[in-house]
Amino acid sequence: MPEPENESAEQPRLTAPGQGARGGLLTQYLPILEWGRTYNGSVLTNDLMAAIIVTIMLIPQSLAYALLAGLPPVVGLYASILPLMAYAIFGTSRTLAVGPVAVVSLMTASAAGAIAAQGTAEYLEAAITLAALSGVMLAILGMLRLGFLANLLSHPVISGFITASGLLIATSQLKHILGVQAGGDNWPDMLGSLAGVVLNANPWTLAIGIPATLFLFWVRKGAKPALVAAGTPPRIADMVAKAGPVVAVAATIVIVMLLDLADKGVSIVGAIPKGLPPFALPSTDLSLIEQLWVPALLISIIGFVESVSVAQTLAAKRRQRIAPDQELIGLGASNIASAFSGGYPVTGGFARSAVNFDAGAETPAAGAFTAVGIALAALFLTPLLFNLPIATLAATIIVAVLSLVDLKTPRQLWNYSKADFAAHMATILITLLAGVELGVISGVAVGLLLYLWRASRPHAAIVGRVPDTEHFRNVERHDVFTVPHVLSIRIDESLTYLNARWLEEYVLERVADQAQVRHVILMCSAVNEIDASGLESLEAINHRMSDAGIGVHLSEVKGPVMDRLKRTEFLDELNGKVFLSQNRAFRELSRDDGSDTCEPYDMARGMI
Amino acid sequence: MPEPENESAEQPRLTAPGQGARGGLLTQYLPILEWGRTYNGSVLTNDLMAAIIVTIMLIPQSLAYALLAGLPPVVGLYASILPLMAYAIFGTSRTLAVGPVAVVSLMTASAAGAIAAQGTAEYLEAAITLAALSGVMLAILGMLRLGFLANLLSHPVISGFITASGLLIATSQLKHILGVQAGGDNWPDMLGSLAGVVLNANPWTLAIGIPATLFLFWVRKGAKPALVAAGTPPRIADMVAKAGPVVAVAATIVIVMLLDLADKGVSIVGAIPKGLPPFALPSTDLSLIEQLWVPALLISIIGFVESVSVAQTLAAKRRQRIAPDQELIGLGASNIASAFSGGYPVTGGFARSAVNFDAGAETPAAGAFTAVGIALAALFLTPLLFNLPIATLAATIIVAVLSLVDLKTPRQLWNYSKADFAAHMATILITLLAGVELGVISGVAVGLLLYLWRASRPHAAIVGRVPDTEHFRNVERHDVFTVPHVLSIRIDESLTYLNARWLEEYVLERVADQAQVRHVILMCSAVNEIDASGLESLEAINHRMSDAGIGVHLSEVKGPVMDRLKRTEFLDELNGKVFLSQNRAFRELSRDDGSDTCEPYDMARGMI
Repeated sequence: MPEPENESAEQPRLTAPGQGARGGLLTQYLPILEWGRTYNGSVLTNDLMAAIIVTIMLIPQSLAYALLAGLPPVVGLYASILPLMAYAIFGTSRTLAVGPVAVVSLMTASAAGAIAAQGTAEYLEAAITLAALSGVMLAILGMLRLGFLANLLSHPVISGFITASGLLIATSQLKHILGVQAGGDNWPDMLGSLAGVVLNANPWTLAIGIPATLFLFWVRKGAKPALVAAGTPPRIADMVAKAGPVVAVAATIVIVMLLDLADKGVSIVGAIPKGLPPFALPSTDLSLIEQLWVPALLISIIGFVESVSVAQTLAAKRRQRIAPDQELIGLGASNIASAFSGGYPVTGGFARSAVNFDAGAETPAAGAFTAVGIALAALFLTPLLFNLPIATLAATIIVAVLSLVDLKTPRQLWNYSKADFAAHMATILITLLAGVELGVISGVAVGLLLYLWRASRPHAAIVGRVPDTEHFRNVERHDVFTVPHVLSIRIDESLTYLNARWLEEYVLERVADQAQVRHVILMCSAVNEIDASGLESLEAINHRMSDAGIGVHLSEVKGPVMDRLKRTEFLDELNGKVFLSQNRAFRELSRDDGSDTCEPYDMARGMI
Repeated sequence: MPEPENESAEQPRLTAPGQGARGGLLTQYLPILEWGRTYNGSVLTNDLMAAIIVTIMLIPQSLAYALLAGLPPVVGLYASILPLMAYAIFGTSRTLAVGPVAVVSLMTASAAGAIAAQGTAEYLEAAITLAALSGVMLAILGMLRLGFLANLLSHPVISGFITASGLLIATSQLKHILGVQAGGDNWPDMLGSLAGVVLNANPWTLAIGIPATLFLFWVRKGAKPALVAAGTPPRIADMVAKAGPVVAVAATIVIVMLLDLADKGVSIVGAIPKGLPPFALPSTDLSLIEQLWVPALLISIIGFVESVSVAQTLAAKRRQRIAPDQELIGLGASNIASAFSGGYPVTGGFARSAVNFDAGAETPAAGAFTAVGIALAALFLTPLLFNLPIATLAATIIVAVLSLVDLKTPRQLWNYSKADFAAHMATILITLLAGVELGVISGVAVGLLLYLWRASRPHAAIVGRVPDTEHFRNVERHDVFTVPHVLSIRIDESLTYLNARWLEEYVLERVADQAQVRHVILMCSAVNEIDASGLESLEAINHRMSDAGIGVHLSEVKGPVMDRLKRTEFLDELNGKVFLSQNRAFRELSRDDGSDTCEPYDMARGMI
């Protein structure tokens, strides 16, 4: 027979990147020190190649998301340079690409819009301050290892929020396709505002916007299959399809120039300041910070959740790992870098990260090279974008975000879990009707409320002995053997403050139901922990049962739980005993009362 | 051998009072219909006797707590009449006595003090509005069955809050003992305010206040033993000791009258309006409601928690039950009644309920009779209280609340649970330094944060087979048998959104650690529930493992959990199998890879 192996001997690398046991504290906080040591020429080639592809994709996307955030397009470029550098130094994902993303841009527009009108200096200042606040919050959460707070956003809440945000974003861009002015940061306001101006639509703008939207939809859904059918290799077809927005941008610029559409009322990007991002100082105005901290916190958490799930998905494909708490620091550094270079809140985006990954990026250096690419674009390409129609950017946004709208999830949730369905629908409805901030907060609140409700009603069962065995099972599900003066209760959860009061009520009610009970056995085989409130409830149960002349006994208490109970006076005060096994407890206590109840078991068989 | 019995056959009364299956909805909401049907002469005698004793105790207590709340003393009497009637109709405890209590009076003073100065009509209006808001909130919580929200207050937070409140209350009364004016609703403010005026103390007030305090301390601690030693029956000695405040009140009234102390600067109660409570309408001023709803909610929850624990303790002694959700309705009705009769927030108090219980009260009718007693006092006795020194009332408060200060708990918590100790100390410190409202909120927040932190890191273990058995145990604690290409992970908690992300990280890290892994078995024997987020994490794990060419298998999934999984596409997409037993899963999967790893087990023995 083989010797039993100890599996831990086979685990040479138990540390995640950024939690380096070898490199110590510095490597933990600066993951670049780990991957940087083994950087070489072939990795460099791959990273450079990926950077070029991502740069081409990022330029129109950055402009478009800045537009969505209500900011000058160049701010989108600014937010795509230094933040990428910062993430390359502090981030733990090898392939995550940070920058402006749709949902965070919408949240920025909503928060900054509450401070000032779009286009004013105060609006831009609010957006920069949001990035600074969000960066500081993320970094603090990371240093305090509080990443677990993101757990408060359950999957149904996140997917509801993303769906509703996608609808809000697409609606918000309709005005650019129509060439009208409209506002609002929730559906009723947006639709009301659009309804009032839809008849003023500019036909030339429509003539750009509608074909651009249809083209981008086709590129997204139909181009790749068509190219593959025509014999293009799938990998190339995929890249061409992803370049669709660049084609739309180039084509509409040319059309605007040829037909002089800017003079016919088509909004264009216009003059973009040429050069590198300016050094900016975020506001230290306390009243502004007081107004912005709640949206900044929500942006931080939503951004972190989105980024971490992208990073984890990509890391798993190559059996790499990320360190979520260090990711908070990486995203925090990115946002602080964004604020100091005149940008707005950024996070890791799915589309760009997937392109980066597919294009073969191997290290965060690819992100740094992309930053250089965007910086070159900011220095030299901006004059080319003068005639870019806003409607084209709106079309790229609409096409991108409508893929976020997920209509299958509600039905799946309805089938699987009504509570999760409720949290999902509440998030969608409140986000659509009352805006993004209230939507996220309500989703978290509904989810937590439902969780606490379930946690306060844990499972427990009155058990009896299965005949001819030493096993004890729920009396309601099995034909089991019990005696009237002994009540055996199996507790199926840890005892914490959320369910401690429930345990008191449960035991008291069960005892009140059965006048003959003289002993209560609490079977603790599933109790992993008893917190101070749980202990106090056990004490209360013990005192109340003692007053009523009833013994309280424990059985099958786990080792670590027993160790802690021994540090208290509870075991001395217990009006009963602690038994190693439920079977022994039941056998001993059911004998105790043989005189005044009928003798319901067969002593000779000795099984009880 | 006896037939196995089904215990449920022995449970004729599974319904709690106020949850009557017999009486239906009306009995559920009006428990008086249940106990009223069997009311008879002997019960009447007992209830009347208890009511007389409680009335005598309540008169000075009601005046004192109104003083603590910063209200005219007569308001304390008003709050002790209609609320008791309302509780008698709607409450489920047979012996709970509602009325003004110390902690709620302090919270009322803090909330109303933020609106207006003590003694003004606005202050009184705020207190009445607090009672109305709190009553409506309690009733709504009760009708929505949201009593579980009180669970958010863990025992360490409650005891920390009570200790700190006791210290704050005792400090707030020092000014009355000294005969000076002082303010503040936290320790730094109170002590600073007192320090500025302590030299102005009135010697005559001190001459009343200090002896009264010492006498009441002695009555509380020393009188009963002394009387028992002198041959008095313990029950009578106990009653005499409890009448101590009445003695102090009578004696100091006589002293004030004899020495004409009111003219020498001793504050007295003065003229109390004679008669029954006026009919009052709570404010419907929306801005006042907006300012008061948070403190009203905190008062409701603190009051409910205090009341329910008293009611449960007393009910258990007689094997009676209470229905917590109906208790919310009972307390809600009491507070609404208080508001409409010019009173302030009330709840079930420990001291008076214990006296009521000990004096032999059998039904809530005793409370109604007490209300009649207090009403008679309000009609005829108030002139007798004209010369009652405020210092005497302050002395009764100080002596009563110092017994709330609990110095043993911190040490016990430190020994038992550092997390609970942290929540306890945070509550004490923030309550003392920043007042009652922030204290409660911080306590709840710290407790929830620590809970969520633990919930996000549930227990799981890599397991291996114990040689010569079919049992699987933690590889870190036992010498067990494993094979390098099969990773068995036992999950020790239900999979909910709070720990779903953790599971993804845990599985990904364990797989990243072991390059040879080709199969992961998730052993689900302790998983009672998988919510939608948990399911999505399982799907993510499955996709990521599939991408890496690793099979994902489940073992020992519970019946109800499996039933729900079958309603999803997860089982179709699973890149592996579901095994009934972990042993079968391990046996089959470890064989799968016999060729390229060494054969570490003995096929002939057939144990794997």
